[in-house]
Amino acid sequence: MSARLEQQLAFLTEVDKLKSVNRGNILTDRSRPENSAEHSWHVALFALVMADQADARVDLARVIQMLLIHDIVEIDAGDNPIFDVPAVNDIEAEEKAAADRLFGMLPKDQAQTFRALWDEFEAAATPDAVFAKAIDRALPPVLNLASNGGTWAKYNVTEDRVDQMVGTKVARGAPALWDHLKGRIHTYFQNAS
Amino acid sequence: MSARLEQQLAFLTEVDKLKSVNRGNILTDRSRPENSAEHSWHVALFALVMADQADARVDLARVIQMLLIHDIVEIDAGDNPIFDVPAVNDIEAEEKAAADRLFGMLPKDQAQTFRALWDEFEAAATPDAVFAKAIDRALPPVLNLASNGGTWAKYNVTEDRVDQMVGTKVARGAPALWDHLKGRIHTYFQNAS
Repeated sequence: MSARLEQQLAFLTEVDKLKSVNRGNILTDRSRPENSAEHSWHVALFALVMADQADARVDLARVIQMLLIHDIVEIDAGDNPIFDVPAVNDIEAEEKAAADRLFGMLPKDQAQTFRALWDEFEAAATPDAVFAKAIDRALPPVLNLASNGGTWAKYNVTEDRVDQMVGTKVARGAPALWDHLKGRIHTYFQNAS
Repeated sequence: MSARLEQQLAFLTEVDKLKSVNRGNILTDRSRPENSAEHSWHVALFALVMADQADARVDLARVIQMLLIHDIVEIDAGDNPIFDVPAVNDIEAEEKAAADRLFGMLPKDQAQTFRALWDEFEAAATPDAVFAKAIDRALPPVLNLASNGGTWAKYNVTEDRVDQMVGTKVARGAPALWDHLKGRIHTYFQNAS
């Protein structure tokens, strides 16, 4: 028991570092960049509030678990904003190595469970992962709309690009949410142009 | 549907403010104070990792939901570190008013569900709430042990006081976790004195 707890507590201490990984966007009060730990809280809460947007096959508890761990690899691999992806780095290999190291700190059974959950999220092929991805992609637009365009303004993103990078994934997992958001996004881009 | 989504998105935008509520402790890298949003992520993840510490009556999904919302009231009421409680303010009344306002932004059915979940956490009388409280109280010691004493050093806290303020609640919901932690805490205080 004691060795197991030591491994679990070492993992939980290590992931404190996610609080120092900054994302591309800023807080809605524009005071500072958002970090990946507080984003992970926000997106898990978003999934909870949006539960009635999920189709009947979705297990919300698993979705929330996925969202709690989905960005932990960024401790080693850093955040890669979807509108500012470096062309050179092999993000996928870096993130897999990070998953090996970080989830590998846990007791073997949990290391396997967490890694499988993260792999499932990344593959986005199951109903749970499709919904989790939709929620993860839908939150930044909500925050951008509340902060004068946020990352759209910062990276000179067009409405078509938002539709392509965000809309496709949100519509797949949470179609009614996307129907709603795209109207607000359209209004933003009309006023910004 | 649209009015419901507007209420939900307004709530999710408002709670972005939890990222600007600072807690008494600092990050383990000592770079800055921890905020209540990233703490909420950390403690929800802590519950997930510590699932096998919960007794058989505990519904882990509900515990994680409680922990995701447990500090939202701090947007209005602020954080009150357990070792630095002001004698004057009526924290309980402030937090209840905050719960009225913040959860009240949600559609009525969700406002009621979230408020009931928060009330249950605060009352700490059900197996889910007892475990959630244990996890919420156990995380700061883990972080203090990783940052040269953290809030214990800051507020001149004795080992007896940790036992009283932390140990009682952790032992109630997660006895084996407390057995383990109290040994490490004892070693810290022996070395610090």
